[in-house]
Amino acid sequence: MAQQRDFDPREFRGAIGAFPTGVTVITTRDGDGARVGITANSFNSVSLDPPMVLFGLARSARSLSAFNQAEHWAVHILSAGQEALSNRFAKSGVDKFAGVEIEEGIAGLPLLAGCSARMQCRTAFRYEGGDHIIFVGEVLALDRSEATPLVFHAGKYALATRKSASLSLSQAATGEAGFDENFLGYLLARAHFQFYERVRENVVRHSLDDVEYFVLSVLSVQDGRDLARINAHFAYTGQAATPELLAGLCRRGLLRGGDGALHYLTPEGRQLTLELIAGAKALEAEVLGKLGEWDAASLRNLVKQLVLHTNLGHPHPWDEAAAA
Amino acid sequence: MAQQRDFDPREFRGAIGAFPTGVTVITTRDGDGARVGITANSFNSVSLDPPMVLFGLARSARSLSAFNQAEHWAVHILSAGQEALSNRFAKSGVDKFAGVEIEEGIAGLPLLAGCSARMQCRTAFRYEGGDHIIFVGEVLALDRSEATPLVFHAGKYALATRKSASLSLSQAATGEAGFDENFLGYLLARAHFQFYERVRENVVRHSLDDVEYFVLSVLSVQDGRDLARINAHFAYTGQAATPELLAGLCRRGLLRGGDGALHYLTPEGRQLTLELIAGAKALEAEVLGKLGEWDAASLRNLVKQLVLHTNLGHPHPWDEAAAA
Repeated sequence: MAQQRDFDPREFRGAIGAFPTGVTVITTRDGDGARVGITANSFNSVSLDPPMVLFGLARSARSLSAFNQAEHWAVHILSAGQEALSNRFAKSGVDKFAGVEIEEGIAGLPLLAGCSARMQCRTAFRYEGGDHIIFVGEVLALDRSEATPLVFHAGKYALATRKSASLSLSQAATGEAGFDENFLGYLLARAHFQFYERVRENVVRHSLDDVEYFVLSVLSVQDGRDLARINAHFAYTGQAATPELLAGLCRRGLLRGGDGALHYLTPEGRQLTLELIAGAKALEAEVLGKLGEWDAASLRNLVKQLVLHTNLGHPHPWDEAAAA
Repeated sequence: MAQQRDFDPREFRGAIGAFPTGVTVITTRDGDGARVGITANSFNSVSLDPPMVLFGLARSARSLSAFNQAEHWAVHILSAGQEALSNRFAKSGVDKFAGVEIEEGIAGLPLLAGCSARMQCRTAFRYEGGDHIIFVGEVLALDRSEATPLVFHAGKYALATRKSASLSLSQAATGEAGFDENFLGYLLARAHFQFYERVRENVVRHSLDDVEYFVLSVLSVQDGRDLARINAHFAYTGQAATPELLAGLCRRGLLRGGDGALHYLTPEGRQLTLELIAGAKALEAEVLGKLGEWDAASLRNLVKQLVLHTNLGHPHPWDEAAAA
């Protein structure tokens, strides 16, 4: 009944990598009481009653004898910010615990802080699994936080992002040539304008238009720019301030001209701008609150990637500030 | 040495849920040759040489005897679009395979299509694991696709989103009150305008302005609307068409007026609009190609959530089309 395999190890690793997992660090103490820790994504739950989890450890791992002898071990489900910890515990030949904040758990288990969840276990079974040993542990104690977990997928770190509902109940088929709710250009325009619509309410309330608001915002990051440099920072919108618009803001006491046609915010102008930005940030907090902390982090992350990939060379307001 | 557990089963499920996983459907045939399948996220790789994987099955599962007797089983790592398949195989008492496209694998294993990866296995070990049995299988055959995998995390479906780099090298600290590259309003504006900037090049080349383009796009989804209904569909941009603008498009032969002030695309107008949309879609494909298929799916997903959460009641172009 022996069957020949039709794939090589590289293909197997690729297929296994298609299964996304969290990342854990598993710690114990060796026979001499020294702290031992490894990074593993071959973790999973096994049983609810009694509560049991498992992980796989290579027969070739340096830490094998420590885990073979240890009665207890602790699983740490890493949070999104703990990429460095994952990398550190995946290496060998370094003092993995140096400088890491450690608490002591059951039987002196070294416990790491800042994880999404932690489970302290007692070995229940050790099973053969090819070139690995499968450790099954009964969970004796656990704690958790609301921190977004780190994800490992296709050999890279990732975040878990909740799946969305459809935009509207009526998903009319619009044919090959039309656009629908999956067209990114439409989604971005809706997202931008719907967000800005409520920022704009505040802007209009102060008798400002969009371009005037952009001018004030740009100067609030770095004061003292001339018209060309102001405009360079929102050229991406397709809009531009005119000398007349700047003169109007000066007449209203929000800007003052300076040497060499540079413009500066007056104290009144700075106060108003900070108020408008504070309003926009309050709106941001409200919107992101609806998404939840985890998806908000992913959204920022992806829109940043998009901005990087589509930038035709426009500066960011703080680029010039940093150069100045 | 017995230690009392200080948590209840609900807390254990919560802690385990903090570990993100992919979702698999595992299939086999029972003693009568009938197809059997279950949804499982307690899957993992075990060994590279020989290639082995494992999954856990509750002792109480109806399919336990089938898997106990079967020599072979197939693991399907589900792709992001296979949520319905996941739900279907998680239920009992339904014909899980009804209407599902099936191929036959080793020893007649039922194989599902459209997955991120598939592995056909022969049982190597069956181990005790509390209220579950751990099945370890040697992988005999595998295949995979580039489809984004489905993720399960904290009891919900999710997507895996690659972690991103920073926007620019100069991350000037802008203080509490200013805005920086993490301000969502800024990121959305950059993403929208940078994307639209290149769409606009094409629009301008045809001597159209933004609002004229919006009018043509809205009519391409559903023809024959009056000025108020046209404008309702891009009111979210803060812009509006005037009667003069519509008259101008009519003079250029792109629109024609009809009964009751309804406006329609002429064949020439429709042709031009489809060209512009095709250009925008080519741009979308280029941009999403840079992100990669997986992150593109996550980005769409998150921006959709944002659009749902920030919509103050503006219709989508296809809403009215569906109602008509």
